[in-house]
Amino acid sequence: MSYVHGYDRRANVRLQDQADALVDLLHSDTHYPEGSLVLEAGCGVGAQTVTLVRNSPRARFVSIDISHESLAAAQRKMQSAANVTFEQADVFHLPFARESFDHVFVCFLLEHLARPLEALEKLKQVLKPGGSITVIEGDHGSTYFHPDSAAAHEAIRCQVELQRASGGNANIGRELYPLLRQAGFADVSVSPRMVYVDASRPRLVDGFTRRTFTAMIEGVREAALGAGMITAARFDEGIRALYRTAEDDGVFCYTFFKALGRKL
Amino acid sequence: MSYVHGYDRRANVRLQDQADALVDLLHSDTHYPEGSLVLEAGCGVGAQTVTLVRNSPRARFVSIDISHESLAAAQRKMQSAANVTFEQADVFHLPFARESFDHVFVCFLLEHLARPLEALEKLKQVLKPGGSITVIEGDHGSTYFHPDSAAAHEAIRCQVELQRASGGNANIGRELYPLLRQAGFADVSVSPRMVYVDASRPRLVDGFTRRTFTAMIEGVREAALGAGMITAARFDEGIRALYRTAEDDGVFCYTFFKALGRKL
Repeated sequence: MSYVHGYDRRANVRLQDQADALVDLLHSDTHYPEGSLVLEAGCGVGAQTVTLVRNSPRARFVSIDISHESLAAAQRKMQSAANVTFEQADVFHLPFARESFDHVFVCFLLEHLARPLEALEKLKQVLKPGGSITVIEGDHGSTYFHPDSAAAHEAIRCQVELQRASGGNANIGRELYPLLRQAGFADVSVSPRMVYVDASRPRLVDGFTRRTFTAMIEGVREAALGAGMITAARFDEGIRALYRTAEDDGVFCYTFFKALGRKL
Repeated sequence: MSYVHGYDRRANVRLQDQADALVDLLHSDTHYPEGSLVLEAGCGVGAQTVTLVRNSPRARFVSIDISHESLAAAQRKMQSAANVTFEQADVFHLPFARESFDHVFVCFLLEHLARPLEALEKLKQVLKPGGSITVIEGDHGSTYFHPDSAAAHEAIRCQVELQRASGGNANIGRELYPLLRQAGFADVSVSPRMVYVDASRPRLVDGFTRRTFTAMIEGVREAALGAGMITAARFDEGIRALYRTAEDDGVFCYTFFKALGRKL
């Protein structure tokens, strides 16, 4: 599986920007009690780990990722935190005993996996009965904006198709409810976290519309052109249209989904 | 201007179902103080008037609509309410003195107008300085679902195109911020009201996915086929796919937008 966002420095900066702008929206209602052991699966460069640890300073975290490079970045970022352990591990071959963890946390991981249901089943195995799973994923199909632009939708579709070609699903957010149910979790509840951006919210205009979403789509330009998915002119027109939605009379909408489930 | 939803009994039942299921989401934060005079522009069959009056029992309402038939239905529904007056009037030729109203309320009206900005300007004229305007509109471009279906999106697009052919804009929700700003309102703030529906919310599965949204799309079948927009087989496939999203592993998403502005 290749990681469609890329492991380069620019991707790291982008993921960090995103984390800063969206921390409250996505994470403010996640708190783990003192002494609980939490598995963070797919921690990447630690963008979410920072917030997880800050919101639950007395819980202990094991944060895993398949990429050594990402883990190294995460470790540099978190070096002062005593309650996080980083480990290189594959979510499909977890090096943990069954029922080891009180809780499991997953953010922006399932979108990259060809078998998200199997990943959830594996995570359920290492979760203690009564423990919770929290899953946060985006959904690129939730994107719409003003002024509307067919070129912008085509550019976004390149990202969706490249992610699909890598075995992932950029529109997985809307599927969290059936996925968690099918994996056998109980009390599944999903709450959408819509990012609504207009000129009255300048921090989101810059932090989300420009520097997170549009920068992410811009980041697949070479791959999309290389795959013959779109012409350079059309792609660039789409990117300009996305930046256009960040102007004073523009509006941009995107929705993340946050799911909670429990292992009986 | 022809009204794309139609004035028949089925449309009335549908609009009433929608009002019942969505009352809290759309209206729970709208309350007008004792003695204030509120203009409800485009009251239709009174689906929103019922809630407006219940939430602000000591305000006085003037509810207008361009359709005599709709007003008659609204009047039958509200006959016991002493604090509502119904009047037949065109939003572009309001029969009221300038600065007559303390507040203006608009719900599901702008989507049907070819000149929504001009309508807002006319409404602003009859609003007192310091008064508020509240606007609620849907946005069909905010619709996505699981399982996804190209046919379902094509069926929805028929509704959007028919509404456009009538001079309306079924995707107007996302534009409320720039529209209110352009009309000269101050302190404009927009909050999206997303309807997220999965099997854990059976009231919305039935009341919204099936009986409101899908029934509305189904309602344009004859018009869409008559206009040669789509084949009967493809349209019916789309409708089946929309009902499919109401099954146990389905998910349906739609977003309304609620805007508040103030006249300086």
